[in-house]
Amino acid sequence: MKKHNYSAGPCILPQEVFEKSSQAILDFNNSGLSILEISHRSKDFVAVMDEARSLALELLGLEGKGYQALFLAGGASLEFLMVPYNLMKVNGKAAYLDSGTWASAAIKEAKFFGETVVVASSKDQNYNNVPKGYSIPADADYFHCTSNNTIFGTQMKEIPTTNIPVVCDMSSDIFSRQLDFTKFDIIYAGAQKNMGPAGTTLVVVKEEILGKNGREIPSILDYAKHIKAESMYNTPAVFPVYASLLTLQWLKNLGGIAAVEKLNNAKANLLYTEIDRNPLFKGAAAVEDRSVMNATFLLNNPEHATVFDAMWKEAGISGLPGHRSVGGYRASMYNAMPIESVQVLVDVMQALEKAV
Amino acid sequence: MKKHNYSAGPCILPQEVFEKSSQAILDFNNSGLSILEISHRSKDFVAVMDEARSLALELLGLEGKGYQALFLAGGASLEFLMVPYNLMKVNGKAAYLDSGTWASAAIKEAKFFGETVVVASSKDQNYNNVPKGYSIPADADYFHCTSNNTIFGTQMKEIPTTNIPVVCDMSSDIFSRQLDFTKFDIIYAGAQKNMGPAGTTLVVVKEEILGKNGREIPSILDYAKHIKAESMYNTPAVFPVYASLLTLQWLKNLGGIAAVEKLNNAKANLLYTEIDRNPLFKGAAAVEDRSVMNATFLLNNPEHATVFDAMWKEAGISGLPGHRSVGGYRASMYNAMPIESVQVLVDVMQALEKAV
Repeated sequence: MKKHNYSAGPCILPQEVFEKSSQAILDFNNSGLSILEISHRSKDFVAVMDEARSLALELLGLEGKGYQALFLAGGASLEFLMVPYNLMKVNGKAAYLDSGTWASAAIKEAKFFGETVVVASSKDQNYNNVPKGYSIPADADYFHCTSNNTIFGTQMKEIPTTNIPVVCDMSSDIFSRQLDFTKFDIIYAGAQKNMGPAGTTLVVVKEEILGKNGREIPSILDYAKHIKAESMYNTPAVFPVYASLLTLQWLKNLGGIAAVEKLNNAKANLLYTEIDRNPLFKGAAAVEDRSVMNATFLLNNPEHATVFDAMWKEAGISGLPGHRSVGGYRASMYNAMPIESVQVLVDVMQALEKAV
Repeated sequence: MKKHNYSAGPCILPQEVFEKSSQAILDFNNSGLSILEISHRSKDFVAVMDEARSLALELLGLEGKGYQALFLAGGASLEFLMVPYNLMKVNGKAAYLDSGTWASAAIKEAKFFGETVVVASSKDQNYNNVPKGYSIPADADYFHCTSNNTIFGTQMKEIPTTNIPVVCDMSSDIFSRQLDFTKFDIIYAGAQKNMGPAGTTLVVVKEEILGKNGREIPSILDYAKHIKAESMYNTPAVFPVYASLLTLQWLKNLGGIAAVEKLNNAKANLLYTEIDRNPLFKGAAAVEDRSVMNATFLLNNPEHATVFDAMWKEAGISGLPGHRSVGGYRASMYNAMPIESVQVLVDVMQALEKAV
């Protein structure tokens, strides 16, 4: 039986991505070769990389606006390092918003390079909200934020306006909602939520901001070198890039970000309405900052957990337990999750209410 | 029709790896979930990672000898950076053997950190041999070499003995031949030759050499942090690691490195014998340094290329053209290539001899 997969990432992907990528492992493009054994320099794979790069920009509305899309390795955690290496000046400084565990990890890596100003932090509230009302120093080399906090289930609803470059870790909500993406100078995202399987990282860079920090950059960490090599500076993660392309094609056929945003809002609305209505549950995050991707919630009476856990498992749900730093439950409702799966969870919550 | 895949990497893998990994994308371990959508923290995937790490050490004969195996991201090119970050002292120096394009790239990245002594180079001979008879400075922080040079088709037949730590890029011949692997302190290899598909990198580290260079290391580049996190410091490349495990299991079932080395020697012997016998061809690399993995060869008369190219393509061979820096042909005969495929190539070479 196919599960209702609420995993926070790696996570559910469209069924057609599973089917097409499974087939490509047996025979890719009728070539007599598996996607796992073809050269990354082969005509067929260069076409995959080129289409993935241009489709990412197209879906974000960034084509022809001075941006380049790269599919790199190392996850968002390597971008925590690459961003300061590429943007922070020698003796410069960077501004960071501390809205969660991953933002905090990005800050730690930036401190390795130089002065790192934390403009605001919700750490004292266990990151249950996204800080607001902060000011961004105009003399910083860049401002870094995290658009969606997977662990705590919060999401930035507004992106601040500033004159310095804006860098955003969008790992857990890229391609899920419409934003004016031209407000960003660098967007990066580990693939393993809305874009594909684990193993590749999308980095979207506005080219004009590169080459200005006067710092010598190791080749493998240099965005300009990756751009010049058309995202093939070294062997890319062939299969994860291919599966990401399939996912982006699925999204385009669905109607793009505008279409999926409506579906995502409907799913989140269905679940949050039940969390607020059902007297057994409460939300974990500040209401105004609730993430459309990751809904965190708790049982008012922890003694109901045994029964509830048995009920959702019986219903074919997986991946629902919350992160250890929040506890309770986390329902991750990424692009590929059908609203029918959310209805199954809501039904279980209502059945629990009747049962106890 | 299934091709005879001579690609230099990504490259041929065992057919059972294609079949099992294709199936796991549809349903992994009868879990009702795809391998592409499971959490890297799930019990099933933690078991995959643990087995891959211990099996890599077992196959190399390094279990219980103070080594740790990691499956990292970023390819060998990121290791070019991680090695000096982790081993080179502040104001220290490192010794490198320059035996090919990738060795040269590793040297370039190390120079970023400090003094880099090139103990010997065959660059002036277009890397057609592996330098010998050099001395390794006893006061260097480590010695770095490349066991097999994919592009030029040369291979180190002896590993020098030295009292300083030895680091080896084994990307293109790991798991292909028996060596005393305890001579090495760090071995690294991009997966996409003998270990699996592109997207993960095996790093084998002797733990006792870490933490001694007095350098502050960015978290994502710190081997000690990856070891502490059991190779899950950040989300690993789930599918590439899984497919690598399947490949390592295949190798173990075959009889391990000792068994595959015999097969590899038989394949290389078959092809090199024909290169030397056939008056139309000549080898590109120094005979004593010829790689068992990658055989480079040229037509004595380049005008035969059109006919030869048509003939091997007709025979179902792919991936045979040489790297642009060597020209001619390169037959990569990694572990998974059956000797029958080599015989097909030899037959075509003999047919060409008769045809012209």
